[in-house]
Order: sequence, then structure tokens, then C-alpha cells
Amino acid sequence: MKNISSHLDRAIKLLTKLPGIGPKSAARIAFNIFTMKIEDVRELSNAIISLKENIKICSLCGGISDSDICWICVDPSRDARLICAVGDIKDIFAIESTGEFNGVYHVIGGLLSPLDGIGPGELAIKPLLDKCRSGVEEVILALNPTVEGDATSLYLARELSQIGVEVTRIARGIPIGSNLEFADIATIAKSLNGRQKC
Amino acid sequence: MKNISSHLDRAIKLLTKLPGIGPKSAARIAFNIFTMKIEDVRELSNAIISLKENIKICSLCGGISDSDICWICVDPSRDARLICAVGDIKDIFAIESTGEFNGVYHVIGGLLSPLDGIGPGELAIKPLLDKCRSGVEEVILALNPTVEGDATSLYLARELSQIGVEVTRIARGIPIGSNLEFADIATIAKSLNGRQKC
Repeated sequence: MKNISSHLDRAIKLLTKLPGIGPKSAARIAFNIFTMKIEDVRELSNAIISLKENIKICSLCGGISDSDICWICVDPSRDARLICAVGDIKDIFAIESTGEFNGVYHVIGGLLSPLDGIGPGELAIKPLLDKCRSGVEEVILALNPTVEGDATSLYLARELSQIGVEVTRIARGIPIGSNLEFADIATIAKSLNGRQKC
Repeated sequence: MKNISSHLDRAIKLLTKLPGIGPKSAARIAFNIFTMKIEDVRELSNAIISLKENIKICSLCGGISDSDICWICVDPSRDARLICAVGDIKDIFAIESTGEFNGVYHVIGGLLSPLDGIGPGELAIKPLLDKCRSGVEEVILALNPTVEGDATSLYLARELSQIGVEVTRIARGIPIGSNLEFADIATIAKSLNGRQKC
């Protein structure tokens, strides 16, 4: 098919690069943008640029923030002696949305993966260890339950134990609302090993 | 959950307004934009604005174009005596992608829907009738097979027949690759009524 509009084609091509958007969704979004009011399109366009230009990385936890230090790290009601170590910034949102955690975060910025050349030096592990040398009581490891996540958790647990900090790991088991029948073997095994007293 | 970043929240809120994007997809896209290179983010942002500001509506067919008249209408190899009437601009792309049509298009700009106050005067029906008074041989109606689409097709068929133009309608039937067993009754009935000689 010949190009109907170079502007449309360019927008569709760029939208397709975003996660979870295929060519059909991109075309649908592009047509929708075309029918939106010009003020709304400008607002969307500005919000995208602003997202990149104005969001900062918190210098304490590595999370995102509008200022140099995020609202979690400056909040005096949050317990700075309890650190939840996460692999990625996005994971902070997942844990915050539960409302169950009142400590602070530390973003590792990835997971150990020797085959991809990611060793402890490539991740924010040293800043975590430094932090833990002054007044931190517990570090909760909330890394993804994958091979890389498990390796990183093991490595962190060893390093943190040497400092004398208590290290825990979020429970792995059957997800709420799911069916035991359809759970995979590894998950069932983890849920058995991690069983708790009623 | 407290706002982690007002810039992030605004971007997520605006992205959620786009079709097919829920809050989780919007957050995923926003985080992805945050990790993109600034040049790529600027390009995306500009493409969105450019989509709205630079695309024009073809003054002949009502399709979209980078110039006043679209490439289909100016192409001398396209048969201007054969018009395919579609409800929406998007439908041109669907038909063009087949590569089976060598005529020109006419965008009606909606479907008749008296309950929503959309009568013949609200749609680009008069321009189609005017066009058909000079040298047009056949109008293919390619409107959606819905109640509104059927009503609009009936209305157009009557008006166009009075001018003396041949009016046809794209076939409705069992979609390619689907299973007769799972097709709905109305579709099977249409495919029986519209049977063709082998």
C-alpha cells in the first residue's frame, strides 16, 4: 500500500515502538489523535516531553521524583531503618499500591546476569551496602522470582548478612485468586517450602 | 497511594484516554518513555503534534492526505468511475491494504442514526450524489454490517439508483479462516442468501 500520509505513517511507526502497541493499535491511536481537539493533542505531546525532561531520579533511593529527593525518602513517618530493595523503579509503584509497606526503597537498577555482562559493579549494590552500615535494621529483598532475581537475592543476602543487617525476602507462592490446579510445579514447591503457621 | 511524580501522573492520565490503553498499559508506556533517549521522546512528541497539525482532509474524497487532494484521487491509474463509499476514514486503509480495489473513495463520515440526531444532512451524502451525476458508473457500499450501516446502505442505494448509477454492496458472510460452527445465525443467513455460483 502506498503511503496515504507521511505524517500518519511516522506517528504509527513511532507509536509501534512503545511497549504493548502493535501496528493495528498504533493506527487506531493515531486516528484517534487525529480526531482529538488540538489543545488535547498539545497537552499529550507536552506531557510526553515533560515526562522525560522533568522527572528526576531520587538521589537517595534511585526511585523517580519531581525533586532531587522523592517524597518517600523525605517523609518522616516512613521508617528509614527498613529498606525494600527492588530491581526496577516500576516495582516501587507495585509495592506502594498495596499500602502495606512503611519503610523506604532502594532501586538496584537491574539484576545480576553474568552472560549479559551485568555484575555487582553494574548495579546499585554498593550504595545499598553503604546505607546498611548506618542504622538500617532490615532489608526486604523484593526482586523478581526469576533465575536472575534469585541469583541477585542470594548475592545480596550474603553481602548484607556480613554487615549484620537482617535480610528477608518477599514470599513466593500461589497468587491470590488463582487455582492450585493450574499453578506450575516450581511455584507449588515454593509455597510448600514457605508454608506458615495458621 | 501518594503522587510519586506529578509529571508521571499527568502523562499516565492522558495516555489512558487513548483507545485500548488502560491504566496499567499507560504506566508501562510512561516508564518506557522515561527510559527512552531524549531525541526519541522529542520525535514521538513532535510526531503526535504533526499528526494533528499537518494532516489534511482530501477535498475530493474526504480521506486523509498530506496535501489538499490525496494521492488516490490524483492518481490517473485509479478508475474515477468506480467509487467505494465508506463510513470512516479508517475504512480506506482497510480496503487499500487488500490491494483489490482500483477505484476511488468517498467518506460518508458516519452512519445514519436518527436516535443520535444523525440524518442524511449530517453526513457527506449530498457530495456523493453530486459526484455520481457526472460519469460515475458504480458505487460500492462498504459500510459496516450493523443496524446503522444497513440503514445507511439502504438509504444510499435508493438515492443512488434514482440517479441511475449501479449500486453494489460488499459481501457479508463467513470470514476467511473462521469456523462455520461458531458463526452467528445472522452471518450464516447472510452467507446463504449471498451464495455465489462456483
